[in-house]
Amino acid sequence: MFKFNLGGLISPVQMLAERVISRGLKAIGRHIIVEAFGCSREVLDNPMLLRKTLMDAARKANMEICGEIFHEFNPQGVTGVVVVKESHLSIHTWPEFGYASIDIFTCGSYADPWKAYDHIIKALRPKSVQVMELKRGIIWSGG
Amino acid sequence: MFKFNLGGLISPVQMLAERVISRGLKAIGRHIIVEAFGCSREVLDNPMLLRKTLMDAARKANMEICGEIFHEFNPQGVTGVVVVKESHLSIHTWPEFGYASIDIFTCGSYADPWKAYDHIIKALRPKSVQVMELKRGIIWSGG
Repeated sequence: MFKFNLGGLISPVQMLAERVISRGLKAIGRHIIVEAFGCSREVLDNPMLLRKTLMDAARKANMEICGEIFHEFNPQGVTGVVVVKESHLSIHTWPEFGYASIDIFTCGSYADPWKAYDHIIKALRPKSVQVMELKRGIIWSGG
Repeated sequence: MFKFNLGGLISPVQMLAERVISRGLKAIGRHIIVEAFGCSREVLDNPMLLRKTLMDAARKANMEICGEIFHEFNPQGVTGVVVVKESHLSIHTWPEFGYASIDIFTCGSYADPWKAYDHIIKALRPKSVQVMELKRGIIWSGG
């Protein structure tokens, strides 16, 4: 995905560009899929830290939080979901492999899922990341 | 994905095949991404029905439920997430477009995300569906 920034702000042009696929088609949602490898065991096994990270990421990305569920596994690992009006953020961690799977799904023009991504990656500090953005709900919008 | 069934049961061979990518590599998680178009407005705007559908889907797929959050929007639309020990199920609906985006993410050998998929599709009865399975967390497992 081509991404441009204006001093950290998202321009109205960029917001529009993210949703308009081509003439007459638009995407309802944007879904960022993240594979984070080489994270520290301590971070991936800390539900309070991961909860704060996802909640702060949602706020920074201009999302409105509806609720959240975080679950700590025995002997290790955390699953957490933050439900937002603009869709959801989720994280599932496997500290034994240094791996976290993260999904950031947003709709609308005001939330910027890549701001949430930046915040989460800064907190997790993975040694390697694979990331992709899927457009969800591509529909005919006229034009 | 090649999928085979033995009278509706999943064989141990199939469960293993779902996780082993090739010699020495396995996937920690399986993520089914569903784009459902042409669903009825009544179904997509019914949070109680969608909640029951996802909860039943989780149980049928052999998942253990940790919690759930469903949110109804004004004037329309529902967002819902069921967090399970094996990861999560989510749905976001846009009744005005007849569209629902559904994600089913499972880990482990006992949960079968495709059973959850079957149950959800039966309830939503979309006119068209796009579906894919992503392997999440592909790691070296020796061998």
